[in-house]
Amino acid sequence: MPPVAAAQSHDVAVVGGGAIGLACAWRAAGRGLRTVVLDSGDLGAWHVAAGMLAPVAEAEFGERALLELGLRSAQAYEAFCAELAEVSDRDPELRRTGTLVVARDGDEAEALERLIAFRRSLGLAVERLRPSQARRAEPALAPTVRLALDVAGDHSIDPRRLVAALAEAVERSGAELRPRTRVAGLRVEGERVTGAELEDGSFVAAGAVVVAAGVHAASLTGLSGELRVPIRPVKGQVLRLRDPRGEHPHPPLVSRTIRGEQAYLVPRGDGRYVLGATMEERGWDTAPTAGGVHELIRDMSEIVPGVLELEIEEIEAGLRPATPDNLPAIGRGAVEGLVWAAGHHRNGILLTPVTAELVAGALAGEPLPEWAAAADPRRFARARAAA
Amino acid sequence: MPPVAAAQSHDVAVVGGGAIGLACAWRAAGRGLRTVVLDSGDLGAWHVAAGMLAPVAEAEFGERALLELGLRSAQAYEAFCAELAEVSDRDPELRRTGTLVVARDGDEAEALERLIAFRRSLGLAVERLRPSQARRAEPALAPTVRLALDVAGDHSIDPRRLVAALAEAVERSGAELRPRTRVAGLRVEGERVTGAELEDGSFVAAGAVVVAAGVHAASLTGLSGELRVPIRPVKGQVLRLRDPRGEHPHPPLVSRTIRGEQAYLVPRGDGRYVLGATMEERGWDTAPTAGGVHELIRDMSEIVPGVLELEIEEIEAGLRPATPDNLPAIGRGAVEGLVWAAGHHRNGILLTPVTAELVAGALAGEPLPEWAAAADPRRFARARAAA
Repeated sequence: MPPVAAAQSHDVAVVGGGAIGLACAWRAAGRGLRTVVLDSGDLGAWHVAAGMLAPVAEAEFGERALLELGLRSAQAYEAFCAELAEVSDRDPELRRTGTLVVARDGDEAEALERLIAFRRSLGLAVERLRPSQARRAEPALAPTVRLALDVAGDHSIDPRRLVAALAEAVERSGAELRPRTRVAGLRVEGERVTGAELEDGSFVAAGAVVVAAGVHAASLTGLSGELRVPIRPVKGQVLRLRDPRGEHPHPPLVSRTIRGEQAYLVPRGDGRYVLGATMEERGWDTAPTAGGVHELIRDMSEIVPGVLELEIEEIEAGLRPATPDNLPAIGRGAVEGLVWAAGHHRNGILLTPVTAELVAGALAGEPLPEWAAAADPRRFARARAAA
Repeated sequence: MPPVAAAQSHDVAVVGGGAIGLACAWRAAGRGLRTVVLDSGDLGAWHVAAGMLAPVAEAEFGERALLELGLRSAQAYEAFCAELAEVSDRDPELRRTGTLVVARDGDEAEALERLIAFRRSLGLAVERLRPSQARRAEPALAPTVRLALDVAGDHSIDPRRLVAALAEAVERSGAELRPRTRVAGLRVEGERVTGAELEDGSFVAAGAVVVAAGVHAASLTGLSGELRVPIRPVKGQVLRLRDPRGEHPHPPLVSRTIRGEQAYLVPRGDGRYVLGATMEERGWDTAPTAGGVHELIRDMSEIVPGVLELEIEEIEAGLRPATPDNLPAIGRGAVEGLVWAAGHHRNGILLTPVTAELVAGALAGEPLPEWAAAADPRRFARARAAA
């Protein structure tokens, strides 16, 4: 896409300054594009997210395309973080401590056996642990645990540190980070997007606009009908907990991410833990509820009873941006100048590196590679045309 | 006690600007005493308290003296609030909606039958409700509820409104309310208390000092040995919840205070509820914990399942000031000029009116009436002397 000629204009305007928007801007600037990030300043889903990088633990039957994206992004994470730390002087603290998926009872153990077989059939590296082995690995597991799956390669990162590092990297890369800037919508002229309309009535001209606005992509104006990627909010409640023994208790409650069927516990390594997450279709509501908090604590306390001793630091709810097929929309949209980095649902943090690479490629006019074809944003326009 | 002669001195210095300290100051000023309230500005136990005025629902075997104090204070509440509203132009909003004590299962029903018999033996007005009657009164009760006790006379008040009204009343009564004033201890000279030592090194001279500092009474200097009332903190975690339907949903979830064995739910009448409270002996720790929050929600959801739908507004923990015999210390201490309004444990809000009257009486040299003799602060000195 050729840059627009006007003096103050940008090659790329990124709508949204969360993990994905910042990563896209960083990569765009790295390709020499004049880039601006338009950020409302509202805390996005990244602020609530636990930051699991767990494509293997999360692999579901029938989600091969998502698994492919996830595996590639997880693989890219180490180099991505190394480069990010180098550029930003902030360590996003990728924690390579692996994940245990745990079955509480006979039914869950049966389901977990099927998931183990499924992962092995895909050639994924997982290890089946008997209860005694699981408790040797994580002594805080309840004695009643029936079976566990050790996924040594599924790691985690603190999304708040990641975003702080990305913001610094964006600024050092020469891109402009415009805070407290609320985008109302995109301007479409003729057959192309020409920039972003701000809520204050002003306009940011750009050769291309990257929509990385999380759930707010759903309310951007200018993208009617076939231009739009349908996005709905899926509420997730999350607790942030801390060990009353302080920042470096020995031993820590758990070292690995612990996943049950309904809840997960992600250790940060400094006595802090993230306990998540509900999945609720409740529109734009972000209030934590007694029921949501209760379920998370109950479910995790049946796997790791010691979670009950942890102090509550924060309770938050965020909105995951979900598409009808639960796959993200990454790459060129239905008109020139429109690029999507949206609809990442539960996988925004995991898919940040791969999304940034794909978006930077799209901005340079490269086609989406075959392995990412399922994320093509134009699939929704095609589905509508076919209907 | 004669006022000290010095020009800037006060007849009375009250240490602590919570519900009890303010009420004592208001009553002291009402008797013409030059009164100053020294308030640290820290939010006290009143800020966490639910504000149940429930001497009958809470009556325990072997606590006759406490019941007597509670009944008298509960009886005084209506006139107290009317006068307070008149003086302060702020309605503390006494809610006369009664209390249901609920048994979840056979064991709890048996225990509740014993409590009903005990209350009747004391001549207290209570009504035994079968499950169908209880659910007619409060349709949100779980179908599994086994038995209920209707205590129509046990009401509630919002302690935050109460304190706001009291602060206004104190100022209008001519007493001085000194904010951000941290008291280090009391000065004892010869055989009398002569004032309060502040943390900034200054001194407030007063003819008498009223200790209404909640748990902080335990750390005041100057009160060594037999002068001291032994006070320890008892942690209580409390949730503040709200109905997602807004301020005046019809019907409300519940209208009465609902008490189970382990948790209670106090409606505020504006779609807000207080769910409390844990009882934990953990020193000065005030961190909410996953376990505490979990227990409260679990226990109440077994009685009122709809509590799970409520939104979480606040989670707080406060410290109840408890004495060894769980009775408060009200009235003159072991030396001249020392007056206690302390150690109210779970009953600070309930006992506020009666405490203020007794303290005002003590300041005027009146002896403690017979029905309040068990609250005499000097019982601890006597116990030590006898040991």
